[in-house]
Amino acid sequence: MLLLRLDNSVATPKYRQIMDQIIGMIDSDVLKIGSQLPSSRSLSERLGINRSTVYKAYQELWALGYIDSQPGSYSYIRKRVAIQSQQTTRMESIINWDQVVTLDSKDLSDAYYQMIGTPSADNAIDFTPLSADPRLLPTEDFRKCFNKVLKDGGAKMLLYGNPLGNEQLRQFIVDRMGIHCISAATDEVMLTNGAQQAIELILKLLVTGDQSIIVEEPTYSSAIPLFRFYSRQLIGIPMRKNGMDLSQLENAIQQKPPALIYTMPNFQNPMGITTDQEHREKLLKICEKYRVPLIEDGFEEEMKYYGKAVLPIKSMDRHHLVFYVGTFSKALFPGLRIGWITADKECIRKLVALKAASDISGNQANQAALNLFCRMGYYDLHIKRIHRVYRKRMQTALKMINTVFPDDQFTCTAPAGGYTFWVEMKHPVADEKEILRVIREAGAAVSPGSIFFPNGSNRVCFRLSIAHRNEKEIKEGLERIKTALRETC
Amino acid sequence: MLLLRLDNSVATPKYRQIMDQIIGMIDSDVLKIGSQLPSSRSLSERLGINRSTVYKAYQELWALGYIDSQPGSYSYIRKRVAIQSQQTTRMESIINWDQVVTLDSKDLSDAYYQMIGTPSADNAIDFTPLSADPRLLPTEDFRKCFNKVLKDGGAKMLLYGNPLGNEQLRQFIVDRMGIHCISAATDEVMLTNGAQQAIELILKLLVTGDQSIIVEEPTYSSAIPLFRFYSRQLIGIPMRKNGMDLSQLENAIQQKPPALIYTMPNFQNPMGITTDQEHREKLLKICEKYRVPLIEDGFEEEMKYYGKAVLPIKSMDRHHLVFYVGTFSKALFPGLRIGWITADKECIRKLVALKAASDISGNQANQAALNLFCRMGYYDLHIKRIHRVYRKRMQTALKMINTVFPDDQFTCTAPAGGYTFWVEMKHPVADEKEILRVIREAGAAVSPGSIFFPNGSNRVCFRLSIAHRNEKEIKEGLERIKTALRETC
Repeated sequence: MLLLRLDNSVATPKYRQIMDQIIGMIDSDVLKIGSQLPSSRSLSERLGINRSTVYKAYQELWALGYIDSQPGSYSYIRKRVAIQSQQTTRMESIINWDQVVTLDSKDLSDAYYQMIGTPSADNAIDFTPLSADPRLLPTEDFRKCFNKVLKDGGAKMLLYGNPLGNEQLRQFIVDRMGIHCISAATDEVMLTNGAQQAIELILKLLVTGDQSIIVEEPTYSSAIPLFRFYSRQLIGIPMRKNGMDLSQLENAIQQKPPALIYTMPNFQNPMGITTDQEHREKLLKICEKYRVPLIEDGFEEEMKYYGKAVLPIKSMDRHHLVFYVGTFSKALFPGLRIGWITADKECIRKLVALKAASDISGNQANQAALNLFCRMGYYDLHIKRIHRVYRKRMQTALKMINTVFPDDQFTCTAPAGGYTFWVEMKHPVADEKEILRVIREAGAAVSPGSIFFPNGSNRVCFRLSIAHRNEKEIKEGLERIKTALRETC
Repeated sequence: MLLLRLDNSVATPKYRQIMDQIIGMIDSDVLKIGSQLPSSRSLSERLGINRSTVYKAYQELWALGYIDSQPGSYSYIRKRVAIQSQQTTRMESIINWDQVVTLDSKDLSDAYYQMIGTPSADNAIDFTPLSADPRLLPTEDFRKCFNKVLKDGGAKMLLYGNPLGNEQLRQFIVDRMGIHCISAATDEVMLTNGAQQAIELILKLLVTGDQSIIVEEPTYSSAIPLFRFYSRQLIGIPMRKNGMDLSQLENAIQQKPPALIYTMPNFQNPMGITTDQEHREKLLKICEKYRVPLIEDGFEEEMKYYGKAVLPIKSMDRHHLVFYVGTFSKALFPGLRIGWITADKECIRKLVALKAASDISGNQANQAALNLFCRMGYYDLHIKRIHRVYRKRMQTALKMINTVFPDDQFTCTAPAGGYTFWVEMKHPVADEKEILRVIREAGAAVSPGSIFFPNGSNRVCFRLSIAHRNEKEIKEGLERIKTALRETC
């Protein structure tokens, strides 16, 4: 007979007391596997409680796997697989995951953790971040827009959305691209989770593993693991003063037509180079000649602070070869994760299916809030403001560059916009790691050049981004770097 | 000599007037390729305007590709590639995209557009949506949380974040999973853009194209194109009354060990079946025996309205074989796109790298707002509320089921939670398309059963979801279906 005692003086509900006592008896082997429990009727009568209380306890015991029960029949103690949380020590996996995971995902993971490296020291002047200075972001305006969108739109803003993305925001993008002479209809534009997802979707659309991908060398570091994931052959074409070497590009295409070419014509990441109209025309001609699709990453299209504005390659793309990738992450809020692709309509249609398979749809409320933000004129105001600010910051940096990185020892880019400089040692006196260590010790942080080379590099280069630094910090940081380099070189 | 006339009475800026007139002359062949433009000095003197105005016009012309110019030298009209927006007719792409895009992406796209089919009619009672009724969503509470998060956190909420996801929200999830007896540390949990991204990341981690994937048959329709994208062999194991047929499963594994097995133990989509403790133990045993990773899709873990709560398979997973996938999309806001994976720590580490490559990070502000929402107790309140509401809705539906789908003609599931019923015609009198048409004509919409079969099906089935329907609508909708079927069968 089951001996249970209920205590009326404690807060524990009675069904729980019954459960706990029965579990205790099972664990201490007082109740053996196969033992029959009293019926809920008899137990409730014996304890002088409502039958439903006993019933609830039995239900919980069943759910926890302690008893077998059939409707209208007795319950029995069953052999139960221990739940994991009851184990005092965790066991190792019986799968050796390093052998089970795909090689591509292992490579990607290794490359990722190598790239992100160690976080920067707290007191260093950090020249590594590459997005607008948080101190300049119009967060309050965006908050108001988001608030209004949820107030006016209600629950429907928080449902699944069209994977193409918010139509009004796509229209805003269409209009905005019009300023840069890109002509597109709204169904030739789809929203993505930032430029990163845009690039991945295009890779999914166009690349099979045995095809090659051609990129600039150096190129955007965070895209390299992605390119490698989708292609076993990543070909780097050297960057010259005016963009990638087009004769080498043509040679490479002739040797093996690639699945696509990836280029950043404005303030190229990492070098800060902007190609001129002629280079763009020639590059497009080559793509047309060999019928190779081109990803034009316009990640900082809005970030020209002074000088001539060159038109995007997409503006000349009569034959729909160009997949133009844009983003709100570099001038505005990176955390919104909103970018877009403009491409041939049929390709967009397929890319939408690929996006839906990846994450069903984007975040509707954020897209609607960003649309309102743009429509209210906040976007234009913000762009004007950061142009003013960064024009000064860039001038501050450019003024110092010759003394910090003297001509006889360094080559250095002087960009007309964007956030980044690229510095290379002409005659390396130490390896990259050592140079970075010296700079770090002097209280500054820069990005190592090697992470931007798709196939590694022995050159000693680094990238300096002024994105998160004001004029005072730029001056102080460059002074520190100057001191560090003077002592080493 | 260049004949230009400036008009002071119009709003068009002078530089723009100069530009427009020069472009007009180029387009009408008055100015030929190679023609030299006057120097900015001489033109400005002649027009009696500031030299910088002419300079600005020349800069714009250069940027638009109309002229060549070198600093300190004359400018010449150049042969210019037409920008696309100036063409009156758009040209066809010179690439035949259907031949260029990868077969996998083409298949995925075809499957996607076939699946989404035609949108439901406006006046139909729609039994297809599968997420909480928008009328029940606590949008106002969430708005307040989002507002507070942006007010308190400022710009840093709108920057890139940790790809693992908001730590406090991960801790909330850990605690919540504890209620379901899953024991995990916060670094064994990562946030994803809904369950869909979670599934894709796991596929990327574990599946190479030549490996097979085992799924339930029928299974979650939106995952099928994704499975096919990553594997050339998708094996369906038939669902019985209590989950997938485990002896067929074991046979299939013995024939060819799959890369992984995908299961939905609670209120399986589409069938609504919940497996019992014993089935779960046996399934896990099979995975352990053959060392096959298991995706446990707990998409409606919180959606038990009455009856016994069975423990997740993950709760018994001592050997770290189970990738538990959770989501806030089914009980709460689908539009937030927040789900998670709980798995072996080393696998999570690699999955984080894969997520970073896909979209850098999730949306920080949304994650923080959801965390606050949960911490304020709104989540619990909401869950209690929808349990109360859906218990009634489900009972309403269950009461009618026998008369709408009589036993002699149909088999029908009677779920203890979730949103869906599964109906199959025992002796089809018409094909699926015809049955759906008849139902649609009677003013109701259901999901076609065939989209849930990984390898197609000739059975006549459909899925009924009560998610977006209140009791009145359920009654009316089921009445309409009853009438439609009575006339046909």
